[in-house]
Amino acid sequence: MPQRHVVQMSTSHASYGVCVLGTEVFLDTRRSTPKGATSFDVHATSAVTVHIIHSPMTKPMINSRWPLDPDIEILVTIDVTSRTVNDNKVKISYYGREGNELSVAWLYLTCVDVSLDVDLSRNGRVKSKGKDKAKWTWGPNGQGAVLLVNCDRDSPGAGGTDSGQVDIRTTADLQDMSVMLLRTQGPSAIFAEYQVVLHVPESDADKVRVFHAVWSDSHPHYKPVLGPDKLSYVLDHVGSGENTFYVEGLAFPDVGFSGLVSFSASLLEVPHQNSPGTPIFTDTVVFRVAPWIMTPNTQQPMEVFVCSIQRGSDSNEVFLEGLQVLLKKANCKLTICSEVETRSDRWIQDELEFGYVEAPHKTFPVVFDSPRNRGLKDFAFKKILGPDFGYVTREPPGNAVSSLDSFGNLDVSPPVTVRGKEYPLGRILIGSPLPWASGRRMSKAVRDFLYAQKVQAPVEIYSEWLNVGHVDEFLTFVPAYDRKGFRLLLASPNACYKLFKEKQRQGHGEATQLVGLRGTERRSIDEILEDELLKNDNKHVQVVISWNRDILKRALGLAEPDILDIPQLFHGDVAAGAEAFFPDMVNMLVLGRHLGIPKPFGPLVGGQCCLEQRVRALLEPLGLTCTFIDDYFSYHVLSGEVHCGTNVRRKPFAFKWWHMVP
Amino acid sequence: MPQRHVVQMSTSHASYGVCVLGTEVFLDTRRSTPKGATSFDVHATSAVTVHIIHSPMTKPMINSRWPLDPDIEILVTIDVTSRTVNDNKVKISYYGREGNELSVAWLYLTCVDVSLDVDLSRNGRVKSKGKDKAKWTWGPNGQGAVLLVNCDRDSPGAGGTDSGQVDIRTTADLQDMSVMLLRTQGPSAIFAEYQVVLHVPESDADKVRVFHAVWSDSHPHYKPVLGPDKLSYVLDHVGSGENTFYVEGLAFPDVGFSGLVSFSASLLEVPHQNSPGTPIFTDTVVFRVAPWIMTPNTQQPMEVFVCSIQRGSDSNEVFLEGLQVLLKKANCKLTICSEVETRSDRWIQDELEFGYVEAPHKTFPVVFDSPRNRGLKDFAFKKILGPDFGYVTREPPGNAVSSLDSFGNLDVSPPVTVRGKEYPLGRILIGSPLPWASGRRMSKAVRDFLYAQKVQAPVEIYSEWLNVGHVDEFLTFVPAYDRKGFRLLLASPNACYKLFKEKQRQGHGEATQLVGLRGTERRSIDEILEDELLKNDNKHVQVVISWNRDILKRALGLAEPDILDIPQLFHGDVAAGAEAFFPDMVNMLVLGRHLGIPKPFGPLVGGQCCLEQRVRALLEPLGLTCTFIDDYFSYHVLSGEVHCGTNVRRKPFAFKWWHMVP
Repeated sequence: MPQRHVVQMSTSHASYGVCVLGTEVFLDTRRSTPKGATSFDVHATSAVTVHIIHSPMTKPMINSRWPLDPDIEILVTIDVTSRTVNDNKVKISYYGREGNELSVAWLYLTCVDVSLDVDLSRNGRVKSKGKDKAKWTWGPNGQGAVLLVNCDRDSPGAGGTDSGQVDIRTTADLQDMSVMLLRTQGPSAIFAEYQVVLHVPESDADKVRVFHAVWSDSHPHYKPVLGPDKLSYVLDHVGSGENTFYVEGLAFPDVGFSGLVSFSASLLEVPHQNSPGTPIFTDTVVFRVAPWIMTPNTQQPMEVFVCSIQRGSDSNEVFLEGLQVLLKKANCKLTICSEVETRSDRWIQDELEFGYVEAPHKTFPVVFDSPRNRGLKDFAFKKILGPDFGYVTREPPGNAVSSLDSFGNLDVSPPVTVRGKEYPLGRILIGSPLPWASGRRMSKAVRDFLYAQKVQAPVEIYSEWLNVGHVDEFLTFVPAYDRKGFRLLLASPNACYKLFKEKQRQGHGEATQLVGLRGTERRSIDEILEDELLKNDNKHVQVVISWNRDILKRALGLAEPDILDIPQLFHGDVAAGAEAFFPDMVNMLVLGRHLGIPKPFGPLVGGQCCLEQRVRALLEPLGLTCTFIDDYFSYHVLSGEVHCGTNVRRKPFAFKWWHMVP
Repeated sequence: MPQRHVVQMSTSHASYGVCVLGTEVFLDTRRSTPKGATSFDVHATSAVTVHIIHSPMTKPMINSRWPLDPDIEILVTIDVTSRTVNDNKVKISYYGREGNELSVAWLYLTCVDVSLDVDLSRNGRVKSKGKDKAKWTWGPNGQGAVLLVNCDRDSPGAGGTDSGQVDIRTTADLQDMSVMLLRTQGPSAIFAEYQVVLHVPESDADKVRVFHAVWSDSHPHYKPVLGPDKLSYVLDHVGSGENTFYVEGLAFPDVGFSGLVSFSASLLEVPHQNSPGTPIFTDTVVFRVAPWIMTPNTQQPMEVFVCSIQRGSDSNEVFLEGLQVLLKKANCKLTICSEVETRSDRWIQDELEFGYVEAPHKTFPVVFDSPRNRGLKDFAFKKILGPDFGYVTREPPGNAVSSLDSFGNLDVSPPVTVRGKEYPLGRILIGSPLPWASGRRMSKAVRDFLYAQKVQAPVEIYSEWLNVGHVDEFLTFVPAYDRKGFRLLLASPNACYKLFKEKQRQGHGEATQLVGLRGTERRSIDEILEDELLKNDNKHVQVVISWNRDILKRALGLAEPDILDIPQLFHGDVAAGAEAFFPDMVNMLVLGRHLGIPKPFGPLVGGQCCLEQRVRALLEPLGLTCTFIDDYFSYHVLSGEVHCGTNVRRKPFAFKWWHMVP
């Protein structure tokens, strides 16, 4: 779009035009140049600056006239807005070979200002003017405004998210939006002649909605003016002043949508009524839709969610008691969801992931609803979505999901730096099959969404070897005061065999596991160590975990001392799908320095569980407290553990996502 | 994917592993370190290099032993492939506080080579090895191989394009494909133990197909091994040698597909049969699918297509005679398509656009079939697609097309440089409505395709003001020997009024247009100049063309002398849709320096058409010859002209597209 206006000059009549502050007017002199003219000069009133664009070979003559050269261009700029229409004048005089004036072309110009402005510098205030407004850049010195997807439900009585509505019903709804100001200055008579239009490119129109704050009877009214199928809006009664617009996002970044949306204000020349105008000037601003951001275990917990299962042998009453002990220590809010709400689905980790969105003017949590859709299918939409609590979901076509779509298979690391590259919001971890295997995999719709958020660059690791297939079955992160501020905990068959052999050597080979649990098959350390099938299974599990270990070391820039190997055995082979052989300790709930660990019911040595003892010895020196919670019948035998049965809403990062460079 | 193999060291038994040439083996010593050990040293056979990775504070001791520090890592590399299995040895010795050896861990390593290779340097030959093979870069010093979409039809009896078939039937088909070699070296016994797998990421698998050349009875057989839904291929009988693969592209770059596809060869450790292996080493190569490239008027014509319309008042027999005169001058092949083939649709410019694809090993023309789909709907597929002539099309959902989808509305400029940025293949021009108007527009499917090709960055200009709405109604490019090698010709109402006024002044006001054309309304120069409605229409048309003129100047880096204004009038207003008032001269056929221009039937002055005379005066000094062709009843009165009724296949650019930086 040209940022300059072309005016046809003529010697038979005066020409009239508009010059927008900060832009050029190009004088098209092809028709005004008289026959026989060999030179020209240009004079103008004081506010006008004349620019002669010429090749290096062309020079003005002694009398400051210019030779007539087809490559010469005449541009003018004006640096103050007009008080009255046509108060700037430009005169081109043409001269013949003898220096005699042949004819004169006059131009009258009105200077106006048109500026579209947003929170360019990301401090919550709309800046007046700014350079390169059409560019959005990352980093601490970046610029460009931020837009939130209006995915919460502030409006009373709304069925879904606020973004699904084409009106504004509460002030709270307005606060989720970004302000855009259209400023105009100049004689109002000129705006009666030229149109001011706000517009959005066709490709962006379905990602946003714009409301115009119109005042009547000293009350603001919010008129929807741009959005899906509404590409332009002609302003009425334009004069010197400011129009306020509120902008909401309708869609998160995803495949085919970078997150950038632009708006433009144009000044149009309208030759006659009902004819499409041609633009003289266009001012463009760009927003980036804020990404959905996940929070790692190192972020402070705000609220823990768990499901209550009351009847039957798999009731979780014992578990809830254990959990409450932990929550009291951690001083964290516990929300117990009733069986009616959860439709008896206890795997709340798997159905949803809490995250947040942030703009300089507003932050709110957003729940990402998995396409898993078992009993908890409607829970996030019905119970979590609300005022200042957003909702987003992705569903694969035909809802073809696998166990790998559950969000126990989705995690995020604490902030890391990898060979100089910073990930100040950590990196998302996704469990996948091996790269070329065509087995179960998190659906493309979900993975595409996660990758498109950009600020927590995902790493895919190999989890499909597990029967359930989730990353939380073999890894977690805990906070630490030293080194990188955290440790990666990995389930380790080797560490478990080493521990059991040590205990055997010390004469405790007859100690059995699962003491105190009715109806279970208790095996002694000797029996476990003699089981060749189990040994074979775990040998392969160790190879697979070691492979992931190496990927994680490199993707997160970890050294050996950043990783702790937690003793754990699996059974079932990697091809058929392995499972934890006893409660899977890394599948823990991390609330600050308080850990809720599945009680492993390991062999008792000297009256103490040797597994608990070893894990305490590994974790307590880091300042962590270990609470072992009995989840045996309520979760473990159903192929899950503490982490699978809980979900945590955490505090957003203090770090602003736009300060990073993804 | 780790480019290093992890081997668990042990002091109780020897360890065995594989090292791939050029990669590292990481020795995991967590289990081999004996209690009480304080230092260690490492010795190895001659081909092995040992690397101790340590923090700057840790230093070897005087006896070249290393202190045991958890941050220390031991890596080994080997620089020649093994002759026999386990012919490299590494020994780690551990020492106690008194310097006494406590225990020893042994490792036996076999070194192999696995390399996936393509035409990395774009000279038509597969290079052995290379740096950064997984990176594809643009420019004269860029690297990375090129893939063609196998969109021609070499295979006899194939219904559609070769890419639609999962087998190879002719050598010609093979020649459209890119060669990929998988080279392996090492004792064959080791490859019986470790698998070699060729694989493609899920996201790329539907864009490519790979065939493995397998020899049996001294005949090659081409086995389809990777492609849509086939992500991996395990090689049989691997030893020291070379496997040849042929790769074809199935899809052009488009929204959501950058054009890059990668393939990897992995060496897998397989713990026991039927279990998924874990990768020790992966070698990755990247291809870019060649873009579809358009050819501007400045490229040499190879073949002109035109439709024969025999019966009725709109028969084009007269036109064809005129065209043959031009073609003889231009010494160019003419193909006249029968009315049966074209189903009486004469607008062959609108139905298709000729372009080409190029790889270092092969180039062929590709016709892009417009979704316009009138009589010529099946023409390109049935008559143009063939051996070494490719076919591609894009259709909007529901086939919702407008006149702006016709390819008379699609053009490409000659090569240009714009403020230092080079476009060595020119820039595509697309006619559109004004940016915010929701009127007729070329469908997104077609525009997305054009933008995704990247090498001829499109410019959208304003053509929707025309009734038909095509860019070829007001602009064309002709070759020139001077300046930038071409001129942009623009239809100009101003130039026409100027010419007519000049003729009126010279006393030719009574000269009439359309002399010799039966049944037409002839108007004199005086009558035309007096027509206020016509003047008003043309005033607005001139504003709109001037606006486009300024966009084109800036998008193509043109100066005033690069543009010629061709006298032309329009009627009908810009809001309702304007049309050429007399045959539209810029809508011409350009064959090298020979131009086939719609005969304007302008007012006769001194027995000569004053419009023809003026156009000759403008163009002949550039070395161009003007042949005016009568298209009045056969095209003009049906709202088209010479250009709309013809189509030209041109010579590809000498410039290689991968040498540019888009």
